[in-house]
Amino acid sequence: MTTSIDALKEKGRRLRILSLKATTEAGSGHPSSCLSAADLISVIFFHEMQFDPRDPRNPANDRFILSKGHAAPLLWAAYAEAGIIDEKDVLTLRRLDSILEGHPTPRIRWVDVATGSLGQGLSVGLGNSFAAKLDSLPFNTYALLGDGECAEGQVWEAAALASYYKASNLYAIVDVNGLGQSGRTMDQFDVNRFADKFRAFGWFTQTVDGHNYDEILNAFDVFRRDGGTQPRALLAKTFKGKGVSLLENREGWHGKAIPKQDLPKALAELDKPLGPNEFVPKPRTGFSVTPFEGKLDIAVTRKPGESAATREAYGDAVVKIAEKNAHVVALDGDTKNSTFSEKFAKAYPARFFEMFIAEQNMVGTATGLAARGKIPFVSTFAAFMTRACDQIRMAGVSQSNVKFCGSHAGISIGEDGPSQMGLEDLAMFRPIPGSVILYPSDAVSAERVVMEAARHRGICYIRMSRPKTAILYSNDEQFPIGGSKILRKSANDRATVVAAGITVHEALKAASQLEREGIAIRILDAYSVKPLDGPGILKAAQETGGRIIVVEDHYEQGGLGDAVLEVVGNQARVVRLAVREIPRSGPPEALMEKYGISSSHIVAAVMSF
Amino acid sequence: MTTSIDALKEKGRRLRILSLKATTEAGSGHPSSCLSAADLISVIFFHEMQFDPRDPRNPANDRFILSKGHAAPLLWAAYAEAGIIDEKDVLTLRRLDSILEGHPTPRIRWVDVATGSLGQGLSVGLGNSFAAKLDSLPFNTYALLGDGECAEGQVWEAAALASYYKASNLYAIVDVNGLGQSGRTMDQFDVNRFADKFRAFGWFTQTVDGHNYDEILNAFDVFRRDGGTQPRALLAKTFKGKGVSLLENREGWHGKAIPKQDLPKALAELDKPLGPNEFVPKPRTGFSVTPFEGKLDIAVTRKPGESAATREAYGDAVVKIAEKNAHVVALDGDTKNSTFSEKFAKAYPARFFEMFIAEQNMVGTATGLAARGKIPFVSTFAAFMTRACDQIRMAGVSQSNVKFCGSHAGISIGEDGPSQMGLEDLAMFRPIPGSVILYPSDAVSAERVVMEAARHRGICYIRMSRPKTAILYSNDEQFPIGGSKILRKSANDRATVVAAGITVHEALKAASQLEREGIAIRILDAYSVKPLDGPGILKAAQETGGRIIVVEDHYEQGGLGDAVLEVVGNQARVVRLAVREIPRSGPPEALMEKYGISSSHIVAAVMSF
Repeated sequence: MTTSIDALKEKGRRLRILSLKATTEAGSGHPSSCLSAADLISVIFFHEMQFDPRDPRNPANDRFILSKGHAAPLLWAAYAEAGIIDEKDVLTLRRLDSILEGHPTPRIRWVDVATGSLGQGLSVGLGNSFAAKLDSLPFNTYALLGDGECAEGQVWEAAALASYYKASNLYAIVDVNGLGQSGRTMDQFDVNRFADKFRAFGWFTQTVDGHNYDEILNAFDVFRRDGGTQPRALLAKTFKGKGVSLLENREGWHGKAIPKQDLPKALAELDKPLGPNEFVPKPRTGFSVTPFEGKLDIAVTRKPGESAATREAYGDAVVKIAEKNAHVVALDGDTKNSTFSEKFAKAYPARFFEMFIAEQNMVGTATGLAARGKIPFVSTFAAFMTRACDQIRMAGVSQSNVKFCGSHAGISIGEDGPSQMGLEDLAMFRPIPGSVILYPSDAVSAERVVMEAARHRGICYIRMSRPKTAILYSNDEQFPIGGSKILRKSANDRATVVAAGITVHEALKAASQLEREGIAIRILDAYSVKPLDGPGILKAAQETGGRIIVVEDHYEQGGLGDAVLEVVGNQARVVRLAVREIPRSGPPEALMEKYGISSSHIVAAVMSF
Repeated sequence: MTTSIDALKEKGRRLRILSLKATTEAGSGHPSSCLSAADLISVIFFHEMQFDPRDPRNPANDRFILSKGHAAPLLWAAYAEAGIIDEKDVLTLRRLDSILEGHPTPRIRWVDVATGSLGQGLSVGLGNSFAAKLDSLPFNTYALLGDGECAEGQVWEAAALASYYKASNLYAIVDVNGLGQSGRTMDQFDVNRFADKFRAFGWFTQTVDGHNYDEILNAFDVFRRDGGTQPRALLAKTFKGKGVSLLENREGWHGKAIPKQDLPKALAELDKPLGPNEFVPKPRTGFSVTPFEGKLDIAVTRKPGESAATREAYGDAVVKIAEKNAHVVALDGDTKNSTFSEKFAKAYPARFFEMFIAEQNMVGTATGLAARGKIPFVSTFAAFMTRACDQIRMAGVSQSNVKFCGSHAGISIGEDGPSQMGLEDLAMFRPIPGSVILYPSDAVSAERVVMEAARHRGICYIRMSRPKTAILYSNDEQFPIGGSKILRKSANDRATVVAAGITVHEALKAASQLEREGIAIRILDAYSVKPLDGPGILKAAQETGGRIIVVEDHYEQGGLGDAVLEVVGNQARVVRLAVREIPRSGPPEALMEKYGISSSHIVAAVMSF
């Protein structure tokens, strides 16, 4: 044992004291949720984990994820006790100028992925676990969960997948303190019930008293000895506020700091040292991961006259970039034959992860992979991206590098009906600060935007269509983020049609119809929905009488129309064509006609000017 | 037994034939997924369920939910065999003019809630189960799940809650056909593993051969005899495409209709009658539910000078409307002490459902309650509404009557940090066709909009703030959906500030500051974000020099700013103040200042004109 049991107890005491001081100083926070887990954290940080306190980027460091993010002060205290930050830094908790926020965020570089929306940490841990295997690294990942957050289904999605993939380097430590925010939890102190659940999902489980160091230490020994290829769950019975009688196992104290005047009394209960204050780190050395160097480029070789769905081109392109960059991985939620990520699965089976029908965990796992330097491409139907909206939001807070690829966007999917139609996906991705949204209209632009997404550091969403579409661009055309393309242009254009994806083809049809009547229009392919090419759109508008028609296969709000208004302001008259009601099942063309986004509606809009 | 076993087998055969014919006629669909469940559906519809085929609104009808919505043709076939629709109607499957869509939607009134986004049906069933208990009705709810969709965490959220609430009137029938869309499922044919999982979650389980009528019938007898207070799960091993050798247990047939030329051969395997074609319905009679009549009205009794958070007023109002209308119920995800739904929980404990930290199931359950005539108010933090984005989307497709109440909106929550800040909730709710979004700025308007939401038939989202705010309105002021309020007005107003919620108070502060410098502004409280008061905003803009400043505690995209641009078009110059980056932890006022939505930024924007 590197650290003596008395030293571990002393670390537990010090973690408690710092958690209390920091939250009282901040005047808010969750001290009682820190105290239930202090002994578990002491063992995890100061006995179990191998890491270099001087180097958060050491690729062989064991990783820790505080899934119960509201216990952040405990994490900051652990960093202080590990010598990573100063004790006085912990007292800056929750200040506007502090990197130690109310819930963990990557503003401190020891945190990879933000937590605080509950039930997400285990998925992130699974992503770490996958990365360890991909890079042949010996590190383990430890995720500390609250009992309350185990009500989140995502925990069980992660549990099922971790077992399926034999993630024996993944530990779930559940702090079963029996108290939620607003009352007793569903299963209260029944650690055996939690163990039954994890066991049914294929995990190796043990139950302990989470304040008994002998039991906790022994459990980790048993995991090492008997865990086999199973992921490991430790169900620890604890008390919220353990060690301070004001808080211990009392309702009404969730998320409340001890008032300043009561702090001395609380600290007095913790004033006796329990052992030496010592910690000897045991970093792993000699491990490295080879980074990708150079500029990612791919060759596009579409034939003129060819017809291909953008989703199919996605499958082709992701294979090409994977060939160049070994850190590119792909995940899919049992739709790989529709999103064409199966091309990746066949070409690079070890770097492809079938995540089954569990989109929340898929996104969380991708975020974990991205945190370990991978470039994950996550694909499913655009409609089902909404299943992971909160996880995508949190990937945003984490400023992650996940690439989201939603196929079957819009009503143009046809007969499957509204449940399968992605009509609010742009509205979901646009608000995320820094997000990039790309929406190609043909196979060439589809391949190019996949390449651009892989090059870009940050969250990208690529929107893809189901139907086959004609090739519009030459193979060497480039599609930089923030650009746009003019597909039709004359000196006499009466209006600019701003289209993207499938509606570009409707716009071209409309232009041909109008041409026969002697009317010219400009067509702008807004393949980069965010950032949108504001100057390009404004210039086109100015040259076409200040008239814009936006046509999109998306609901009226939150999509391309809103984006165009954002850049155009009052500098043009904008007519919007979008889906305005719950659509029905039917053939794609009939649906586009019925819901007002077909060529005939574009013609009518032009004529209305 | 009402229907003989041979008659049930014959029904199973006929269900298969109709499913095949309909999908081949449509040229798309999921026949193999229908055939695996045909025998289960035969027993459920023609033996187990008690319902009146002439009256979908009979309150005592047993309810059926096709959670694996892609088997819709099987459901339409069952309706035909029950005499509810014509056999020839089934052949209109997926046509633009047919109410029989590719996945179930409530366009046919026998479907309460749309399915097709997987893993949601059991939650809806739990809502039905709650409604049965609330109304003292004897009906059961049967949800048919696919094995693939059991990877969705929401299934386990529902499973945990159903057990917690002893929902013995809820049946989950899992069609374990071992094949997903793109390959073998995670647990393949291991029905025992599924049973272990359901058992660990507190269910009474049985496993059967899903094509063996004796086993299936016996299992339902055992459920009735021994099920006790537990919810019941039947794990049925089946084969996809059962009965047709072209499809049976073969990969590559998911979501594919049999080509026209191959249909006769397939049907030939099913051409021998297996028993009499008979079905005797056994409806329950004599049950009724008393509807709410009259117009819902509440008295608001705030004191001038009082200060109260809108979330607290929400708690007060929802109790008042519950007092008037017995069908009002409330659900919360372990945040009731923050959303103040605990006031409801204390006043009407039998109509309050603690749904713990499992928002997806909470929303699905609410949708099920709404389908049974309840008016569910669902509350949690605005940020955590995103966890149920897909379920909210599906509630939209179902044209449900759920009221969503998101508290702690925006950066004005302060120190808890970005994971807890709802900054994309408006972007999520705006696209849903027909949705109403209300965002009150004081306790009076908060109470009034809760009343309006309860009166309105359809999805409403009420956005609430954490901080206490001053009372702005008199108690008898009305806040109709689609309206707005002018809070400051003079003949010399230089601009109109469109604000909502917390930013209304910043706008008022800005007006006072500007007044000292002799500058007047108009302030419009856009409490109805959707529908937005377009005419009111345009009129204010026209009267204030065509200048608008929109200020909102939301990310830049998808919120109030986009909504204002939508109605204003090029008829005003619009300056937008919104949150443009991932915010930090800090005091509310400092955050509003730092991220550009405080009174000083409004003043600066006015001066910039």
